[in-house]
Amino acid sequence: MTENFTTRATVAGLGDMGRALAAALRRNGFPVTVWNRTPGKAGELTAAGAREAAGLAEAFEASPVVILCVVDNEAVGELLDAAGDRLRGRTVVNLTNGTPRQARELAERVTALGAEYVDGGIMAVPPGIGTEASFVLYSGPEHAVEAQRELFEAFGAVRYVGEDTGLAALYDLALLSGMYGMHAGVVHAYALIGSAGVPATEFSALLVPWIEAMSGFVKEAADRVDRDDYTKDVVSNLAMQAKAFPNLIEASVEQGVRPDLMEPVLRLFRERVAQGHGDEDAVGVIKLLRGES
Amino acid sequence: MTENFTTRATVAGLGDMGRALAAALRRNGFPVTVWNRTPGKAGELTAAGAREAAGLAEAFEASPVVILCVVDNEAVGELLDAAGDRLRGRTVVNLTNGTPRQARELAERVTALGAEYVDGGIMAVPPGIGTEASFVLYSGPEHAVEAQRELFEAFGAVRYVGEDTGLAALYDLALLSGMYGMHAGVVHAYALIGSAGVPATEFSALLVPWIEAMSGFVKEAADRVDRDDYTKDVVSNLAMQAKAFPNLIEASVEQGVRPDLMEPVLRLFRERVAQGHGDEDAVGVIKLLRGES
Ligand SMILES: NC(=O)c1ccc[n+]([C@@H]2O[C@H](COP(=O)([O-])OP(=O)(O)OC[C@H]3O[C@@H](n4cnc5c(N)ncnc54)[C@H](OP(=O)(O)O)[C@@H]3O)[C@@H](O)[C@H]2O)c1
Ligand SMILES: NC(=O)c1ccc[n+]([C@@H]2O[C@H](COP(=O)([O-])OP(=O)(O)OC[C@H]3O[C@@H](n4cnc5c(N)ncnc54)[C@H](OP(=O)(O)O)[C@@H]3O)[C@@H](O)[C@H]2O)c1
Repeated sequence: MTENFTTRATVAGLGDMGRALAAALRRNGFPVTVWNRTPGKAGELTAAGAREAAGLAEAFEASPVVILCVVDNEAVGELLDAAGDRLRGRTVVNLTNGTPRQARELAERVTALGAEYVDGGIMAVPPGIGTEASFVLYSGPEHAVEAQRELFEAFGAVRYVGEDTGLAALYDLALLSGMYGMHAGVVHAYALIGSAGVPATEFSALLVPWIEAMSGFVKEAADRVDRDDYTKDVVSNLAMQAKAFPNLIEASVEQGVRPDLMEPVLRLFRERVAQGHGDEDAVGVIKLLRGES
Repeated sequence: MTENFTTRATVAGLGDMGRALAAALRRNGFPVTVWNRTPGKAGELTAAGAREAAGLAEAFEASPVVILCVVDNEAVGELLDAAGDRLRGRTVVNLTNGTPRQARELAERVTALGAEYVDGGIMAVPPGIGTEASFVLYSGPEHAVEAQRELFEAFGAVRYVGEDTGLAALYDLALLSGMYGMHAGVVHAYALIGSAGVPATEFSALLVPWIEAMSGFVKEAADRVDRDDYTKDVVSNLAMQAKAFPNLIEASVEQGVRPDLMEPVLRLFRERVAQGHGDEDAVGVIKLLRGES
């Protein structure tokens, strides 16, 4: 490995993700200091040349860039409680999953400690870190992100989303909601088809291309949302869908499958139809989510 | 157009979908008789050479293949009430959306009328009928489906899924649940990101590839389900996801977005963690949907 001394970083938090981040930095030759609340997680990293700090204070002091990746922002808060003056002049990069509000509050605290705060959202699983598919969202002072671009590229593509510190978390959560919706639909689908003894892998031969064909929908839905027009060129009106949807719930129940993941979709469809919008495309339920009418 | 006299079909129900079906048959040269409860919907079809029946009885008698596509199976039941002996010797193809149980019940009724019953599930929107992307699921007597294969190909690819009449509806509803899950996730995502003034089309540049990258997940999830193993090679454990998920709900509420579509996912994650399965992949919640533990 070629060492890269352009900068140095500390990684605090050596869960699955923290370890993947530290390992990616080492693979790219950056000097890395690591720390974890519970000792004993740094073995592979020290073998790869990382230095394990004896305590959090030492970890904070060791590097100009301090990356935090712990279970949640409450834990991040606890780490900051112990920071004292040791973060002064540093860039704190918080890659812990959280809300926009939490990110803004942490930015205030970190700034008050004399450091710069960058918030980040990791769009990859640990084994994906540093691969083609991985990207990380960053928000906060642009110059601070640009200054660490080379370091950040070790994790995956750098997607800077804006000065408002809360934006990385918001983009992250919005992407996650897309993922969780898809996850819910797919798991329900496998439960339903499995109730007739059809193997999921057999069914996936239909489901995968069907889901892939939907990606056109993601783009079209965006156009509708930005035009705020849900009635133009509707090919499958909400009234018809709301009428057919109970079949999905009924069949699930009859097949012994809990309809929990599908029920809120039907409730929103019916609410929108009851408002007199049965002629709309189903994307019109976004108005309900926003509390508009 | 080259006329094709290998068979003839009646299409009863001229909503958006029925009209698209009849038009596709005419494009492929088949003689078509059409009927709709409310007159006045056959204009473009008769211009394309379809014959409009004066009544339902005439429509049933006109063709060896009678395709039903009305709003729901209750309406199909009403059509059958009026059939008398007029369906004897015919093949009734019900392309109305319904449940497996409804399909089995209708199959009994139609068989008692001396006809064969084929159930179908259309996996396309009306403008998609007859295009590359369109396919229709069929279940019931295989010989009856094979006998009409050429006719059915006018609608899109023919996917015969089994003798059990309920299977086409089950496959259809399972595919729809995948679609509705994705739809829910995408609409929530656009509502959330829009709350910060980010245009959906701008955000879709991230969301589309993110969703496309997930199609690998659809296949992996199927493997897990068939192996019934949710703990091997877990890269993102459920406990961690259940811990981060409230951020999505909290941020939504803070941004003025109703969390209805995401809440049931969190509830199931928590229920599964409470059962002691925090070390599983999130696909393990399928056990809850099935009422297993
Ligand atoms: N894994 C993923 O797929 C993934 C993807 C994107 C984002 N993320 C985010 O990355 C972050 C870390 O996830 P992970 O997968 O690494 O989770 P994990 O494997 O469960 O590890 C959690 C880490 O947090 C530490 N921690 C918990 N409470 C703490 C406290 N009060 N003070 C200090 N340290 C504390 C733990 O230390 P101990 O060892 O002492 O318990 C451990 O290092 C989370 O915010 C997660 O949402 C994860
Ligand atoms: N559109 C799609 O994207 C799509 C996709 C896949 C499957 N489907 C399924 O296709 C079927 C038809 O959908 P569509 O889009 O054509 O709906 P639609 O445009 O709303 O048309 C409904 C049709 O049902 C008829 N109808 C309603 N009640 C009836 C009754 N009691 N007796 C006789 N006819 C009755 C209507 O006749 P009147 O004109 O007299 O009211 C009309 O022809 C539904 O089961 C739907 O779930 C639709």
